[in-house]
Amino acid sequence: MNGRAVVDAIARKRDGLELSPAEIAAVVSARTPDHQLAAFLMAVVWRGMSDAEVDALLARMVESGERLDLSGLGPVVADKHSTGGVGDKTTLVVAPLVAACGVPFCKLSGRGLGHTGGTLDKLEAIPGFETALTVDRMTAQVRSVGVAVAGQSDRLVPADRRLYALRDVTATVSSVPLIATSIMSKKLAAGATRLVLDVKLGEGALLPDPARARELAAAMARIGARAGVETMCLLTPMDEPLGRAVGNALEVDEAVAALRGDGPADLVELCLALAAPLTGGYERAAAALASGAGLEAFGRWLRAQGGDPDAPLARAPVRVDVPAPRSGVVVGCHARRIGEAAMALGAGRSIRGGSIDHAVGLVVHRKVGEPVAAGEPLATVHARRGGDVDAAAVAACFEIGDQAPAPPAAIEVVGA
Amino acid sequence: MNGRAVVDAIARKRDGLELSPAEIAAVVSARTPDHQLAAFLMAVVWRGMSDAEVDALLARMVESGERLDLSGLGPVVADKHSTGGVGDKTTLVVAPLVAACGVPFCKLSGRGLGHTGGTLDKLEAIPGFETALTVDRMTAQVRSVGVAVAGQSDRLVPADRRLYALRDVTATVSSVPLIATSIMSKKLAAGATRLVLDVKLGEGALLPDPARARELAAAMARIGARAGVETMCLLTPMDEPLGRAVGNALEVDEAVAALRGDGPADLVELCLALAAPLTGGYERAAAALASGAGLEAFGRWLRAQGGDPDAPLARAPVRVDVPAPRSGVVVGCHARRIGEAAMALGAGRSIRGGSIDHAVGLVVHRKVGEPVAAGEPLATVHARRGGDVDAAAVAACFEIGDQAPAPPAAIEVVGA
Repeated sequence: MNGRAVVDAIARKRDGLELSPAEIAAVVSARTPDHQLAAFLMAVVWRGMSDAEVDALLARMVESGERLDLSGLGPVVADKHSTGGVGDKTTLVVAPLVAACGVPFCKLSGRGLGHTGGTLDKLEAIPGFETALTVDRMTAQVRSVGVAVAGQSDRLVPADRRLYALRDVTATVSSVPLIATSIMSKKLAAGATRLVLDVKLGEGALLPDPARARELAAAMARIGARAGVETMCLLTPMDEPLGRAVGNALEVDEAVAALRGDGPADLVELCLALAAPLTGGYERAAAALASGAGLEAFGRWLRAQGGDPDAPLARAPVRVDVPAPRSGVVVGCHARRIGEAAMALGAGRSIRGGSIDHAVGLVVHRKVGEPVAAGEPLATVHARRGGDVDAAAVAACFEIGDQAPAPPAAIEVVGA
Repeated sequence: MNGRAVVDAIARKRDGLELSPAEIAAVVSARTPDHQLAAFLMAVVWRGMSDAEVDALLARMVESGERLDLSGLGPVVADKHSTGGVGDKTTLVVAPLVAACGVPFCKLSGRGLGHTGGTLDKLEAIPGFETALTVDRMTAQVRSVGVAVAGQSDRLVPADRRLYALRDVTATVSSVPLIATSIMSKKLAAGATRLVLDVKLGEGALLPDPARARELAAAMARIGARAGVETMCLLTPMDEPLGRAVGNALEVDEAVAALRGDGPADLVELCLALAAPLTGGYERAAAALASGAGLEAFGRWLRAQGGDPDAPLARAPVRVDVPAPRSGVVVGCHARRIGEAAMALGAGRSIRGGSIDHAVGLVVHRKVGEPVAAGEPLATVHARRGGDVDAAAVAACFEIGDQAPAPPAAIEVVGA
């Protein structure tokens, strides 16, 4: 197709018409210049995409790079994905729990950006843990210990990196079909056959509008089903941080506590809800947790990737408690603000490729619905230097009222 | 403003919010890369622009280049603009008629592209006629003979050229506020104080949807009024060609015929309707036509710009009549197809900067509502070579039926 055909395709999308697979391929071709792609992306934000258009885009994205062949690992290989939250260390718990249930778990993961953390960053807080694995080493490890989590290669879905970079600077990130194809292209290229997706709802989420988050969950579940991948989607609250720890080493501690049977209730509940569709049921996952089989699998996993489950983690030299300014009950513990406070301490990065400090972060002592007396600590800040601590900013993450708020939203399940 | 501020502004437009003048200025700045501008333009196609946003964009566009100062020509200087039609040679008639009524007429004009012709191309069919005038020569000429029409300098509204080139390849041409600001930025920079705008309606028009053409007319009338320029907008039919001649020298012939009192009724009627708001009334313009004052002003104008009103025009060596395939009444004489047929003969250009043949074109013998017998000519093709004549394509411009169609739409007037 020539340049005019691309203009015609953009015009058809602008007018709300459905594009053919050939038109989609022409528009997202590497030869199409950024300004035409940018106009197309804004037209997609406006008009959306049909399932057939999404599949055509997805096919071109997956074809743009390497694709992992995990068929040698057996008929079922499990994977999970989260749209990103604050304090979300579920992969560190779910991966070994699934492996402990006898289901191979193989995941490619990313780094954190902005107020949300990334699983790779959390794993790298474990001394010696390697995240750059070859495909051969990864599959051999899944065969031997049942679980592997590695960094995503640049050769996986390169078309997504181009699209994402362009969306980021053209205000076209928040489109349900574009988010769905971005996530699912990487999941399909990564080769698992059974997938659980955690779409966050609430103020700390990628899509703060609950209706659009539900749309995203349904769109991804349908994509998975059409691609022949068993896909289950959970909608889970992200108004306050998950668990109490935010910051890489602090979150590893909390994940280990969860595997020891001593984790915060919201974290444990979500980990079991995510493990259930991958393992064959909630009871089975809960039994693997209760028996300590999950913790054992965690140790095998860490050792296989060069980590030492018994080595001490990095600790921040400065710890400052932030006291409650009044007595009452916590009615707000704002995930986004806490994520931003942790980023400001060095636990996260504001630009891609930026370095982070694994030791720093926050531990929240009072979450929504919990009573607090004036002067009691709302949170402890773990910082590199005293000057890094902005107690007022941390205190501003919390709201204290007189009456207990409504209980948090329950986890919802969305199938294809 | 930094790059993130531009992204935020695009996001606000995407969400249907109104941008501040500073945000508009940041987005259309020369420093904003094409891909961000393209996303913004598509968001404008989607969400439109408020009058305040249009004024902010217009101000930046006008400021981007030179601005003509015509204040030395007196309190009133007239100008006209058409959104482009097939067979539209009205400027050649209106300009001298307005001058003959004692109102200075000063216009910068463009070349044709696609199925519509351009006034500069028509004027250049006159031997010796010069269209590259300096501002000083142009104003001196208006002072001496009352009228000048010259080519638009590259230094006038350079921001519009960048925006237009980008809109052309990103399917963002057909936005009412973007068309309105593109046209009006050039008209405001060209310095006239009284302006008549001819917005075409119908299948040969820039905006084929009548509701959107009306929106464009109203938007431009409002822009003119806010900028302190007396602005009147006409909505005129462009389903069939204007007059009977399509092609540069052929159209000059027809314009001269109109000034001699022998022009086709639709052409004469539109020229008087356009001249009326510029001269102070229809009767005054009609009197200047009837008295021959317009024709005399035409001669003075041509001579002032180096042309010879008595020199023979270029003639095409091949003339081929295209006969009616059946008897009946013409119910369709499709402007766009006729414009494309003339372009295929060499009368127009499909790419900017392409060369044209002033001699070639078509003369239409039967327009809508006129009876025709089988074998009688529907049109005469004026071609450079016999092989250039595609009689079937010309015949396909016409539809012949059995019943007379509804009369063509009347001219509508839109004020601010």
